[in-house]
Amino acid sequence: MNQTYDNEIFFSQYARMPRSREGLKAAGEWHQLKPLFPALEGKCVLDLGCGYGWHCRFCEEHGAARILGIDSSRRMIEEARRRGGGNGVSYRVCGVEEYEFPEKAWDLVVSNLVLHYIQDLDSVFERVWNTLREGGIFLFNVEHPVFTAGVGQDWIYAEDGEPKFWPVDDYFVPGKRSTLFLGCQVEKYHHTLTQILGGLLRQGFILEAVEEAQPPEEMRQIPGMEQEMRRPMMLLVRARKGSRAE
Amino acid sequence: MNQTYDNEIFFSQYARMPRSREGLKAAGEWHQLKPLFPALEGKCVLDLGCGYGWHCRFCEEHGAARILGIDSSRRMIEEARRRGGGNGVSYRVCGVEEYEFPEKAWDLVVSNLVLHYIQDLDSVFERVWNTLREGGIFLFNVEHPVFTAGVGQDWIYAEDGEPKFWPVDDYFVPGKRSTLFLGCQVEKYHHTLTQILGGLLRQGFILEAVEEAQPPEEMRQIPGMEQEMRRPMMLLVRARKGSRAE
Repeated sequence: MNQTYDNEIFFSQYARMPRSREGLKAAGEWHQLKPLFPALEGKCVLDLGCGYGWHCRFCEEHGAARILGIDSSRRMIEEARRRGGGNGVSYRVCGVEEYEFPEKAWDLVVSNLVLHYIQDLDSVFERVWNTLREGGIFLFNVEHPVFTAGVGQDWIYAEDGEPKFWPVDDYFVPGKRSTLFLGCQVEKYHHTLTQILGGLLRQGFILEAVEEAQPPEEMRQIPGMEQEMRRPMMLLVRARKGSRAE
Repeated sequence: MNQTYDNEIFFSQYARMPRSREGLKAAGEWHQLKPLFPALEGKCVLDLGCGYGWHCRFCEEHGAARILGIDSSRRMIEEARRRGGGNGVSYRVCGVEEYEFPEKAWDLVVSNLVLHYIQDLDSVFERVWNTLREGGIFLFNVEHPVFTAGVGQDWIYAEDGEPKFWPVDDYFVPGKRSTLFLGCQVEKYHHTLTQILGGLLRQGFILEAVEEAQPPEEMRQIPGMEQEMRRPMMLLVRARKGSRAE
């Protein structure tokens, strides 16, 4: 993914997205993701695929002691550094699959809209489990299986150009999907809900929240946002590392 | 629903379905549902919407001490009684919403393909919680939100009559859906995944399994069954009543 996110056209398009310009408050899922954060005071937080670092800075503002944001894109990490953060936050150019995941090092692992770029989710779940301290939280937002399974990840349009419905096909054929995102061909991986939640459960995680992102009432007037009520685009999951003996 | 299931045309059509004629082994989800049953020896089991009583008899064969199957359809209950079962099994004409749910009476509550007829899932979750003993299991199979959200709960067909893709729309508009099933207009209720899993979690249930039904390899040759790989139709959930203090 680093090649795409480092691509100049993609990067400049990405910079124009409301969530890039205005941050968390412009993200339709934030009103649901924010309350899923555990108490952050004094905690150590790892952000897998931190992008501009919005979530890292949120954790810092809420008292986290140490925050590491990793991202495979050099440009994203440069942008995150430019936007600052205190001494508690550090950023590193590093892909999720390349990170060393030190044992029992973090209280919270957060990942926003990155796991759908990962082919082998089970391997990430295992490594996140190992890098979390007992009772630690894995909080992520991933593209919804209904969204990733799709046909070209786009609506079927009526003749007048209006979205008619969202097509689902090949749902039980997980794996690579090529799609156009911000003018670039992007490769993602479709995972079924069974794979996502079953993978966490098999690893030993306790599921604490499973939510599909819906734009809040006040954002539904934004052009295009009304379509977000028609099919789920994002899946928010909060999982806890409990004792395995439980 | 009792009116539909008691309708003569519907009932005779239902009798012709492979799962009615041949029972559990002809149900595409059984290979996934079966392993989710807890140990049954000596246990008390309630089946919400038991139909012909296949699951009740399965529980009896596996050592359950007492089994009650309820169904709102008088014809279904007559059929279940006709098919027998030992002294441990009893059947009653009673809708899920009318059942009294005695406190801490059951070790397992099972429900197969019935909850999508229920408008107020949260109320059922609360009553199931109360009727389960500590550590008891709620195991159900419900129509998948991708299936119930659909447009007329049918494929979009190509000109040659082949299913082209499965349409999703109004996903975040839960509630009544009218659909044609076995030649009858049937009313169902669409619930989002958020409502199903979030409702269980809010009630205090521990999610132990969340699986989408996929037909097993050996059934994929059955005409029509190959479509079942293209969109999820059923959602299997196993939830445990743990201690609330946990």
